[in-house]
Amino acid sequence: MTTEFALIDALRRIATSSAARGLLDDAAVIQIGDEKLVLTLDTLVEGVHYLPDDPPDTVAWKLVAVNASDLSAKGAEPLACLYSHALGEDSWDRAFLDGLARACTHFSLPLLGGDTVRMPEGAPRSFSLTALGRAKRDQPVPSRGGARVGDRLWVSGTIGDAGLGLAVLRGRKAKQSAAQWLVARYRTPSPDTRLGPALAPFASAMMDISDGLLIDVQRMAEASGVAIGIGIESVPLSPAFRAAAGDDFDARLMAATAGDDYCLLFAAPPEHTARIRETAAALDRQVSAIGAVSDGGGLVLFHQGQPVPLPDHVGYRH
Amino acid sequence: MTTEFALIDALRRIATSSAARGLLDDAAVIQIGDEKLVLTLDTLVEGVHYLPDDPPDTVAWKLVAVNASDLSAKGAEPLACLYSHALGEDSWDRAFLDGLARACTHFSLPLLGGDTVRMPEGAPRSFSLTALGRAKRDQPVPSRGGARVGDRLWVSGTIGDAGLGLAVLRGRKAKQSAAQWLVARYRTPSPDTRLGPALAPFASAMMDISDGLLIDVQRMAEASGVAIGIGIESVPLSPAFRAAAGDDFDARLMAATAGDDYCLLFAAPPEHTARIRETAAALDRQVSAIGAVSDGGGLVLFHQGQPVPLPDHVGYRH
Repeated sequence: MTTEFALIDALRRIATSSAARGLLDDAAVIQIGDEKLVLTLDTLVEGVHYLPDDPPDTVAWKLVAVNASDLSAKGAEPLACLYSHALGEDSWDRAFLDGLARACTHFSLPLLGGDTVRMPEGAPRSFSLTALGRAKRDQPVPSRGGARVGDRLWVSGTIGDAGLGLAVLRGRKAKQSAAQWLVARYRTPSPDTRLGPALAPFASAMMDISDGLLIDVQRMAEASGVAIGIGIESVPLSPAFRAAAGDDFDARLMAATAGDDYCLLFAAPPEHTARIRETAAALDRQVSAIGAVSDGGGLVLFHQGQPVPLPDHVGYRH
Repeated sequence: MTTEFALIDALRRIATSSAARGLLDDAAVIQIGDEKLVLTLDTLVEGVHYLPDDPPDTVAWKLVAVNASDLSAKGAEPLACLYSHALGEDSWDRAFLDGLARACTHFSLPLLGGDTVRMPEGAPRSFSLTALGRAKRDQPVPSRGGARVGDRLWVSGTIGDAGLGLAVLRGRKAKQSAAQWLVARYRTPSPDTRLGPALAPFASAMMDISDGLLIDVQRMAEASGVAIGIGIESVPLSPAFRAAAGDDFDARLMAATAGDDYCLLFAAPPEHTARIRETAAALDRQVSAIGAVSDGGGLVLFHQGQPVPLPDHVGYRH
């Protein structure tokens, strides 16, 4: 079986256009006339990216949300989407379309077209969605690879909620109210499509956190050719996460290595700190400085000011 | 099980943007600044759109070709593509990528990105590709719905070759040389990406033939609110098709109801006839006038000048 890493490595020899960004980024950026278009495509597979008994409207919501998250992380305003639907059982499909309609409206991604396909009997289904966004004309589109020595590292929102929600769905015990909220974070992520475009002018590098904070910080460090240190105490946790799992070192490590956060991860020069906080506050969104960029390479994890070994599992590898 | 028809009907209530063209067209058309972008997304499913033992490089070729065909049918020049790869066995994936690289070059669709996903063990795989094209600035993008009374109906290339190639793969006997050529038409369709843009200025309606000539003419007639009559004798057949299946009424009906042609189907005022022929000749491509648009509704099939009943099976419905 080909690994994702090997395949992407082989694809890199095909995707040589500069617009492909070496397949290192969340999205492609293509210049059309005076406009910079951002294009992203994500696929959800039954039994891999969603659970067969997840409510179908939430599967559709997630399909749109993960692509909206990619656009936001490139500072792009959402324009439109197309998707491919694998036909299934009638009531499931109807509920899926209800969720799709709500998500397309919520994330400002009007549905323009796509494809419908029939799967062989009993086959797990998959759904692909392509989202198109428009980046600001007069500034570069932040990549993963722009973090510079001296930058601060930031995240939006709270980390680990979706991962804990998935654990709850798999049987982990938690108080009813916290459990419900965490499961909703797993099933219906809500990346803010305005936050990325608003923060992009300040960011030297930006991406979304989809596979786990640690692995995604590692990717930013590698793409940027720098070291990024983060303090595990600084990782922002939600009240529901704390109620269900606490906030000790192990709980924080769990949060930082779970996937499906769909929060923004960005590096920015320290002089932009005040404007970053103001921008997020104006949109009623939380941002937290969790680390710093320095000379060297890779991710360095700190606990109470001391470097600690990285866990074996730093996030979700496909 | 939801039918494709029911699903598209439900999707139409979601895809209300004018750029979606009522989901009646092969592609979406979106205005970005001064540019008209054409977007299409097609999915190939193992065991449905390709055979499990089709050579993997031809599966990749077809994935790119079917999308290139949609762009050409909207008169759009190819710009770029993204695709989603379902990981499989190593040597299969490597061969697939070889075909993908060749097709992206051949169809001028540089690969910009996409997604890679792991499927559950043993699941049939599917591949989605989104292609982006650019339509001419100073003219409308032809839709399926523009055919006008008095127009002539045209097709490019020859009809039925791919369908007969599929029949050969399924055991139909044919001479070796014809069989090989027909199978290649099924496995590696070669829509001309220059022909659609060159013909678009003359066409009042244009689409590609993917599900069978008759069903696609029927779709154009319905979308345009006109009747379209075609003479079965005028349907262009290749020498290989004639050698393998003859050219009597039944053979022609088989050709006109088989899928996977990826030829252009277009309607144009009779005064453009000479320029249409010159344009195709300059690109070394064949075009054939096969019918006419008149008042009324739907497809009317003629044989030796007389209307004949439509067959039960007019093409491939998904």
